[in-house]
Amino acid sequence: MTDFAATKAMFHLPEGVIYLDGNSLGPLPKAAAARVARTIEAEWGEMLITGWNKAGWMDLPARLGARVGRLIGAEPGTVVLGDTLSIKVYQALASALEMNPGRKVILSDTGNFPSDLYMADGLVRTLGNGYALKTVAPEEVEANIDETVAVTMITEVDYRTGRKHDMKRLTEKAHAVGALAVWDLAHSAGALPVDLAGCKADFAVGCSYKYLNAGPGGPAFIYVAPRHAEVARPALSGWLGHEAPFAFDLAYRPGRGIERMRVGTPPILQLAALEAAMDIWDLADMAEVRARSIALTERFIARVETACPSLTLASPRDPATRGSQVSFRHPEGYAIMQALIERGVIGDFRAPDILRFGVTPLYIGEAEVDGAAAILAEVMTNALWDQPQYKVRARVT
Amino acid sequence: MTDFAATKAMFHLPEGVIYLDGNSLGPLPKAAAARVARTIEAEWGEMLITGWNKAGWMDLPARLGARVGRLIGAEPGTVVLGDTLSIKVYQALASALEMNPGRKVILSDTGNFPSDLYMADGLVRTLGNGYALKTVAPEEVEANIDETVAVTMITEVDYRTGRKHDMKRLTEKAHAVGALAVWDLAHSAGALPVDLAGCKADFAVGCSYKYLNAGPGGPAFIYVAPRHAEVARPALSGWLGHEAPFAFDLAYRPGRGIERMRVGTPPILQLAALEAAMDIWDLADMAEVRARSIALTERFIARVETACPSLTLASPRDPATRGSQVSFRHPEGYAIMQALIERGVIGDFRAPDILRFGVTPLYIGEAEVDGAAAILAEVMTNALWDQPQYKVRARVT
Repeated sequence: MTDFAATKAMFHLPEGVIYLDGNSLGPLPKAAAARVARTIEAEWGEMLITGWNKAGWMDLPARLGARVGRLIGAEPGTVVLGDTLSIKVYQALASALEMNPGRKVILSDTGNFPSDLYMADGLVRTLGNGYALKTVAPEEVEANIDETVAVTMITEVDYRTGRKHDMKRLTEKAHAVGALAVWDLAHSAGALPVDLAGCKADFAVGCSYKYLNAGPGGPAFIYVAPRHAEVARPALSGWLGHEAPFAFDLAYRPGRGIERMRVGTPPILQLAALEAAMDIWDLADMAEVRARSIALTERFIARVETACPSLTLASPRDPATRGSQVSFRHPEGYAIMQALIERGVIGDFRAPDILRFGVTPLYIGEAEVDGAAAILAEVMTNALWDQPQYKVRARVT
Repeated sequence: MTDFAATKAMFHLPEGVIYLDGNSLGPLPKAAAARVARTIEAEWGEMLITGWNKAGWMDLPARLGARVGRLIGAEPGTVVLGDTLSIKVYQALASALEMNPGRKVILSDTGNFPSDLYMADGLVRTLGNGYALKTVAPEEVEANIDETVAVTMITEVDYRTGRKHDMKRLTEKAHAVGALAVWDLAHSAGALPVDLAGCKADFAVGCSYKYLNAGPGGPAFIYVAPRHAEVARPALSGWLGHEAPFAFDLAYRPGRGIERMRVGTPPILQLAALEAAMDIWDLADMAEVRARSIALTERFIARVETACPSLTLASPRDPATRGSQVSFRHPEGYAIMQALIERGVIGDFRAPDILRFGVTPLYIGEAEVDGAAAILAEVMTNALWDQPQYKVRARVT
């Protein structure tokens, strides 16, 4: 049984804050500062260049990949950390397109995170030759997976609404028409159980700084199905993806399996922070995290809907088709969120009108959900958001 | 005047070690641990998501870019940090090729760092359509810059030998025939004065973990000449390079100037470590660093050549055409380096036969150079390297 009181105690959560934005940036694992300090002082400071071998830095991306892999149903040896999610999207798409010659279409949806669309746009521009990104409404994805599609690029959970695509069903449809499936797990990894192997996903990518709690700018991960591992070409063919990086050959030969998806020198300080976060994740069972997430999101929705009739639920009502967040719409969403933040409830706003609340059972429980709902009710009932200072838009993330 | 005793005192250098590998991984600035701890505890821990604005994380890549830019002769607002050097090579090349339509050739040399060649290979494979990477011997680069060349991709200082290309001359030649010039400054930034603006370089890239001392996996930087800033298309078009990242538009519009070369979420912990390193660099004058580097490399060469006749100088003898490292060749180079490392002199080995010693005046002086030369002399005179344990090849960086 996952002991959620124990996992909560392993995070630093500031006094007086209810943090419902762990789906944007997870909070600090208490052990992370010491773990990073050890990397800096005992490893970088004392071992210097020899840290790459002696401290195991070189293998850290794959070692952590195995631990992230457990949370997303990946086979052993199929996940590696590195770069940013946008870069990993590019690699996955480029590999998939090359594996499906004769087809030119990347299919995605308008609910996808824009950076995925931008990266696909950059790739099809680079490829030229009629390659194209086709974007349809989320609910029209399935009907548009046809024989023209080379690869689908779908984010399982919508970053604004939490709406969850059916990974197994869409992957099956893709395969049935001869397409490959790339899944973005940015709002899935650590949010809900993912079964990449069972769904026969071809590629998957995700980031570590949201639900995984690796800290600001934590590296991304990429998964390649075992059946593609020796076939995929990463396009971004960097030296650490080479079969023998330290032979310094002039010609590129892709490395074994998932190693070929590495590009440049891995960010060791960020990986050390992720390691501290994974020490917490190792104590968690994803099915139990999911059950608790559903109970908490249901509770939050019920309370908010009762107390705040002017807020419209933007997330699916059926928890089976929802990620681990709850979103509401309101034309004054921006000001409402500023008023909440000033009162210690941190969620976030997504243009044009979405209030987004991440529910993360490792450190959020009934008390936080109830407290946030009560403060939101107070803000709405008394129109506390209707103040000029809440309407000045700063750049927010 | 740069106070080299003061800069040396700002680094942690392990007892009993002479560190001549700062051209591979720079040593730890003493202030880095506290700087990163502050980012982790006071920023990530306390500010959580609001750190992106409150702690200035979002602008850190450009703020640090300005400070790195001073060392490489870049105009204000032309340098940004992020990703790895390999990724930045890809962006620079893709931008340059798109700006020079009708030409298909990337010209590089066999002395270039292999990852640059691999990335170019990945790009031309992705582009198809007759795009090609042409690689010639370093001394033949100039003669091969002709009207077929779209872009030159040259690393100024050879990672093995320290041989230095003439940036101004090759850039002029490139421009004279209508080509663009991409410069890799991996072994230049912090090693010697670079004058990107004066040389009219079009693009430049480099890394922060070598001479700049940002720590393992520190991010790369990219420079785009002001005249190209609003024209270049980064190919890797990520959301943080978008004109309005937080508008979450579905269509990509490149950001203003150098900002468009950003891709994904920046690695804040690594950037914090770089910030501590730049606090030291801010005290240094590159012309003085260069003068001292030349004095020290000349001294080291003289001592080693006198004491170790079996070692062949692999670096140029003329310091004007040499970076801030000294390399020697020996068929048993690998074993010799292991024997040196066991005796506290850390340099590195580069296949097949290069012993490489980085000379980094911020923390290396006459005592270290003389001490290393003496130990090397002892190892060679007494054939101390001729032990089985020194010949077992582990993976080294």
